[in-house]
Amino acid sequence: MKLLRKAIRSLHSKMKREIKLKPIGIIHTPYKEPKGMPIQGKFEKGVRGIIQVFPEYQSGLKDITEFSHLILIYYFNRSKEERLIGKPFLEDQEHGIFAIRSPHRPNHIGFSIVKLENIKDNTISFSEVDILNGTPLLDIKPYVKHFDSRCNVKSGWIEKHFKNGNMPKRTKIR
Amino acid sequence: MKLLRKAIRSLHSKMKREIKLKPIGIIHTPYKEPKGMPIQGKFEKGVRGIIQVFPEYQSGLKDITEFSHLILIYYFNRSKEERLIGKPFLEDQEHGIFAIRSPHRPNHIGFSIVKLENIKDNTISFSEVDILNGTPLLDIKPYVKHFDSRCNVKSGWIEKHFKNGNMPKRTKIR
Repeated sequence: MKLLRKAIRSLHSKMKREIKLKPIGIIHTPYKEPKGMPIQGKFEKGVRGIIQVFPEYQSGLKDITEFSHLILIYYFNRSKEERLIGKPFLEDQEHGIFAIRSPHRPNHIGFSIVKLENIKDNTISFSEVDILNGTPLLDIKPYVKHFDSRCNVKSGWIEKHFKNGNMPKRTKIR
Repeated sequence: MKLLRKAIRSLHSKMKREIKLKPIGIIHTPYKEPKGMPIQGKFEKGVRGIIQVFPEYQSGLKDITEFSHLILIYYFNRSKEERLIGKPFLEDQEHGIFAIRSPHRPNHIGFSIVKLENIKDNTISFSEVDILNGTPLLDIKPYVKHFDSRCNVKSGWIEKHFKNGNMPKRTKIR
């Protein structure tokens, strides 16, 4: 009986902690599979993606057209794994999941900065795409240089891949 | 009967679309209430916050100490409102929710770039705090200057508040 009560309490506290989200739209891109997709949209500037924001959220898009870049927060729905250690695309060295951008992470939250190209009604066209086709979108925030750019940044294990201003050897998912 | 079936189908498709997340830790800060909190952590550099990552995720922190800045993605658990139009802290003009950083947004996802100060076991100490005490943390990503800094950025309605390199009149929540 004591054990049962404990189990119920624990279940309750778990349920209380659970956070439920819903997509606000769907991201459409030319990338049907990870293979060949750039690891960051900046590395393949010509490609375009389309966001179909669900019509009930359309009024929230007012004034975003004034921004050149958007932050997209989305759900890595194709990842079925949750790892704590992983290999990034840039190298074969293992790192903690919170030191890399892998989709196979707790909560599977994805984050991209993209270039806004055009908006018509609830359809956003953007470039600098590193997102798979059919990805559920959770949020859009304006990219603000006064908030989101940092000087004196140390970028850990990633620095060596951009040494002397060079581009990394691997810029696409293999 | 037809209506009932339709209702069930609609419920199913809704459930299917629902995304369930769980906190990976709790963010502790000196800000018990929004009033007096900086609108961006950059505006109040001396203040420190602490992240207690739940012990089961501790191994995912490997190597994050190499990075000077972290991206925190968290849940605005204190907001009970979901608006599509809102006033930002910086001005009294209304904008679409996706053109501002307000917590009262669909899915209530928060995003901050903070400065990593120190890590010991599953406790992360950081500065540049703009997060309320007790906020559930959803993800940590390394801030990478080669991925996350952009040149030629147009920051919409926010530009005028930083004109000629000045700081905005309002840097704290009133």
